[in-house]
This record gives sequence, C-alpha cells and structure tokens, in this order.
Amino acid sequence: MSSSEIDSAWRRLTKGYSHFLRQTPVVKLSGATLGVAGAQVWLKLEHLQVGGSFKARGMLNRLLANPIPDSGVIVASGGNAGIATAAAARALGVSCEVFVPAVCPEAKRARLRALGAQVVVAGAVYSEALEACLARQQATGALLTHAYDQPEVVAGAGTLAYEIEQQVGLPDAVLVSVGGGGLIAGIAAWFGQRARVVALEPELAPTLFQARAAGQPVDVAVSGIAADSLGARRIGAIAWEVTQRHVKDALLLPDEAIRAAQQWLWTELRLAVEPAAALGVAALQTGAYVPCEGEKVCLILCGANMDPASLD
Amino acid sequence: MSSSEIDSAWRRLTKGYSHFLRQTPVVKLSGATLGVAGAQVWLKLEHLQVGGSFKARGMLNRLLANPIPDSGVIVASGGNAGIATAAAARALGVSCEVFVPAVCPEAKRARLRALGAQVVVAGAVYSEALEACLARQQATGALLTHAYDQPEVVAGAGTLAYEIEQQVGLPDAVLVSVGGGGLIAGIAAWFGQRARVVALEPELAPTLFQARAAGQPVDVAVSGIAADSLGARRIGAIAWEVTQRHVKDALLLPDEAIRAAQQWLWTELRLAVEPAAALGVAALQTGAYVPCEGEKVCLILCGANMDPASLD
Ligand SMILES: Cc1ncc(COP(=O)(O)O)c(C=O)c1O
Ligand SMILES: Cc1ncc(COP(=O)(O)O)c(C=O)c1O
Repeated sequence: MSSSEIDSAWRRLTKGYSHFLRQTPVVKLSGATLGVAGAQVWLKLEHLQVGGSFKARGMLNRLLANPIPDSGVIVASGGNAGIATAAAARALGVSCEVFVPAVCPEAKRARLRALGAQVVVAGAVYSEALEACLARQQATGALLTHAYDQPEVVAGAGTLAYEIEQQVGLPDAVLVSVGGGGLIAGIAAWFGQRARVVALEPELAPTLFQARAAGQPVDVAVSGIAADSLGARRIGAIAWEVTQRHVKDALLLPDEAIRAAQQWLWTELRLAVEPAAALGVAALQTGAYVPCEGEKVCLILCGANMDPASLD
Repeated sequence: MSSSEIDSAWRRLTKGYSHFLRQTPVVKLSGATLGVAGAQVWLKLEHLQVGGSFKARGMLNRLLANPIPDSGVIVASGGNAGIATAAAARALGVSCEVFVPAVCPEAKRARLRALGAQVVVAGAVYSEALEACLARQQATGALLTHAYDQPEVVAGAGTLAYEIEQQVGLPDAVLVSVGGGGLIAGIAAWFGQRARVVALEPELAPTLFQARAAGQPVDVAVSGIAADSLGARRIGAIAWEVTQRHVKDALLLPDEAIRAAQQWLWTELRLAVEPAAALGVAALQTGAYVPCEGEKVCLILCGANMDPASLD
C-alpha cells in the first residue's frame, strides 16, 4: 500500500462521488477538556460518514476501481462493512447480496434491506456465512468486497487521512482503532513517517497486539463491548505489512474504559458513537497514551452504528 | 440590537474564552439528501457547543460584559439556559444559583449540580420558580441571566451567525427555531438584509407567529414535543423589534414532522439532536420551505439535551 494508491482513491472518490460521500468535519478541542492540558485534540467526526462509519470510503473505492458484472456486488457482513457495501452499490445503481449468519439481529437485516440489498441468511455463525458467500461468488462472479483486506478498501480508508491533512494540516499523532486493520493501514500508509500512528485495541480483541507478540498474524479469540466492529480474528495481510513498517505503538484498553469514554463523548460533547469509536478518548483519559506539550493528537471517531438507548 | 454589538461579543468571547466555547463545525450536504435537489444544505452543528446548546454563547457574554458581585450569578431555568449559565459561571469561577420548579426532573437537577450550581427548588411551575428567583436576586444582588431577552444574551447568540460567515461564507437563507426569540434575534441582527432569515416554530408553540398575527407580543399557550426548549409563552422585546425589521417568514410545523425530522437526523446522519433542533430539516422535508435552484440554505442544529433512548 502506497500513498499514491490513496491519492488515486481520493481523486476517484471526489471526482464524481462527492455528492455521495461526505467530507466529515474536524472539531478542535483544548487538551484540558480531555485531561491532557497542553496538548491539542482533534476529533475527526467520521461517524457522520454515509452509512455511519468510515467503511463507505473503502467500499465505494472498491466498486469504482473494478468492472461490476451483471451479478452485482457480494459481501459477508451484517455490520458496518455490509452497510457500506450496500450503500455504495445503491449509489452506483448495481445489485448487492449480503450474507449474514442467523445471529445477525433483525434490525441490522432491515437496515440492509432498506439500502436495497438482498439479505441472505446462511449458517449459524459468521464463518459459515462467509463460506456460503464465497461459494455464491464463485457461482455468480459477483464482485466481492472484503471488510479490510483488499487494496482498494485500504486505500479508500486512507482517504480519511488525506482529508484530515487537507482540512487542518498534519497532526503529530493519530490514534486509530484496529479490527482487521484496514483503517489503520490506510491511515499509516498515507502519513508514513510524517505522523505517529498509534494502534488501539480492546484487551478482549487484541488482534494486532497478539500478531506483534507472535511476530506474524495469528488467530485470536475476540469478545467484549466492541467485538461487533473490532472483532476480526486475524489481522489482515495488508495491515500487517503496513503496520510493521509504520506503526510503533499498539495499545490495549479495557472494556470499562471504552464504555466510560463512549459515555463521556455523549454526556460532554453530545457525540453519539459506538464503542469502537471511543478508544482514542479512552487512551487519553486512562493515560495509556500521553501526548507531549503542544502535541496535536487526532482521534478518529470511526462509527456510530449502535442503539442510542445504550448511551443512557 | 446591532451587528456592532455582535462584533463586540465575538471579540469578547474569542479573546480569552476560546478554550471554553467551541467553534462548532458546519457540514455541507447536497440538497438531494434532504429532498431539495439543486439546493445546497449547510448544517451548523451547534448542538456540539458546551452545555449541548447555543445558549453558552449568550450566557458567557452576559457574564463577561458585567461586573459579577460576590453573590455570583442567578437564573431561573432547568433547561438549556440554566445549564449554559451554570457552565459559564463555572468557567469564570463564580458561584451560581439555579431556580427550578418542582416539575423539573431529577436528571436535570443532577446535571446542574454536576456543573457546580446550587439548585433551588421553588414553586410548582416555572412562573413560581421565576418569581422566587427574582425575589432572591433583589436580596442578594446577584447577576441575573435571562434565557432570551437581554442584549448580551442576544448578541452572544449572534456570534453563531458571525462564526458561520467566517467558516463558510454567507448563506442565502438561514432557518432558525424560535422560542423566546433570542437566537433568531442574534442571527437576524448579524445578517440583516444580507441573508433571508426564516423563523420556524412548532404549531403547538407559535409564539412569534401569534405575535405577528396580533401585531404585538401576546401570551400564547404552548405545548408539544419541543416545548422544553421552544416553549416561551411570549416573544421577547428584543426579538420582536429585530424580527419586525429583518424576518419576512414565520412558518409553523406540526409535531409529527418535527419528530420525523429528528429521527431522520439520527438514522441517516448519526446526529443526535433534540426536537427543537430538527425544525429546519422538517421545513425542508415537508416543503414548508422550498429553496430556489442553487440556494445555500443553512440549518441551525441548536441543541441536543434529550434522552438518547428517545431516538429509538
Ligand atoms: C466503527 C468501526 N471502527 C473501526 C473498525 C475497524 O476497522 P478495520 O477492520 O479496518 O481495522 C470497524 C470495522 O468494522 C468499524 O466498523
Ligand atoms: C435547543 C434550543 N433551541 C432553540 C431555543 C430557542 O431559543 P430562543 O428562546 O432564544 O428563541 C432554545 C431555547 O431554550 C433551545 O434550548
């Protein structure tokens, strides 16, 4: 993954699709607000992106960069990747099949159907839905999107970093939540050595952390408050390669701190985000990450697909 | 109210207090997103302001523009004006008494106490709390803040318009929710004839609408979904004067449309706002306000103090 791939994605996405994607705002706060007086905190409100997460960038880039067969687009995910794929397919007027396991709640299926997707329930758990999805893809030749481990998906995520730099300049550090690693790979590939990119994971979903301990991607048990979004079991190959080059710090955060940070974002800032988007605030509030005097720290609020009643 | 008073407020608020107040972001959407293709929609996310509403601007300006006696600051309001006064008093390190009626729910009292205010429960309904507040003010000489009808409060609200113009330039039209009218007075005084300022009220709280019908401020019965914030019973004197000069349109919206707009803002944009902040979207979605081709319409999302579970 190179910054020129991200540059191409940026031009592809902004050329014809600025009416579809949103330029999400950056809010600047004094560090004191977050208990890190002396630092400056930037919040990138990417949870306001189409579909409620950053994923729309990568999925639209994947669809625009490839010929789409008559059989359309196909994906296995009841979460943000599924929503983003369905939304991107609708924007381009192509059909979309989304494979979900039986555990996927009806509210999520309804949301996917509302985006025009055909929802196929296959298997009891995610791995079975994925298997059925891949078999179907072989049969129909539909364009497959992957939640985090395709170059176009990573490059699309990287446009988030490009956009931040365009909007407010270069941050000193960027704190990024990691699931399968597509988001951090895009961001780290863009900033390279120009900003310190810090990986954040829940203690209960330490996919990158464990890979680093093992010296290679390994399967990891995942659970906890953010498993919905950050629960990939193995770090992606692209993410592994990019983070080995560019990411020095991989920090773990306990679920209680993530939950407290999510609640704080609502109570103090009126930002309603899902747990996966609260890890940056948790890292500052717990002191897991301590910025220097004058440091500009950028937090990526990456998603907001949750039940608002959970903020009570 | 003149634009030079707003200019003074801007300088006062940004000089020493930019660490307290936030510069809230503006999001630009294509009109198609809101069913007004051809127009451009700007959303001013002022619900992300300190205290969860625009009121912090006016209250801080009131406190900064006057000597504050040892007896501190006093206000009668369990709502956004009370929260904003308490937050501003805390920022300046002065004491604050907030008078609320017995109907004020415990959650609101707790929030005020968390901001360091002393909460005084007086009377069964708002008018009785206000009476007790005024008697106490006479006794202590504390600085009184009014929710909407003091020049410094209106000028502070006007800085919202100043800020929009600085951030993204002049809009063609601005849609503003009206309670007692402090917000629209500040905005209309700033833009004058340079932008079309449109007043929006719930059908069930038609304070400005009825005043215009009567040719003068009159007491109005108020109820409905947004009465918490837009339920002033009489338009303020400052607002009456300014809106007579500068506001051509005063539109009414039914509660169902306001509720649908509030829900839409959450479902489609992941913006969690209170009903009072959804009137602009409702005006576009119902066709109560129809922008011209190419028009830049700015909506003010003015508050987010509600139970997030109400967005379900
Ligand atoms: C809201 C949110 N944040 C972060 C992530 C993690 O992204 P990645 O899997 O690319 O690391 C996801 C993935 O689904 C997500 O939905
Ligand atoms: C969220 C919100 N919006 C709008 C208003 C109306 O403001 P005004 O009373 O200045 O017209 C209020 C007043 O409390 C409010 O709290």
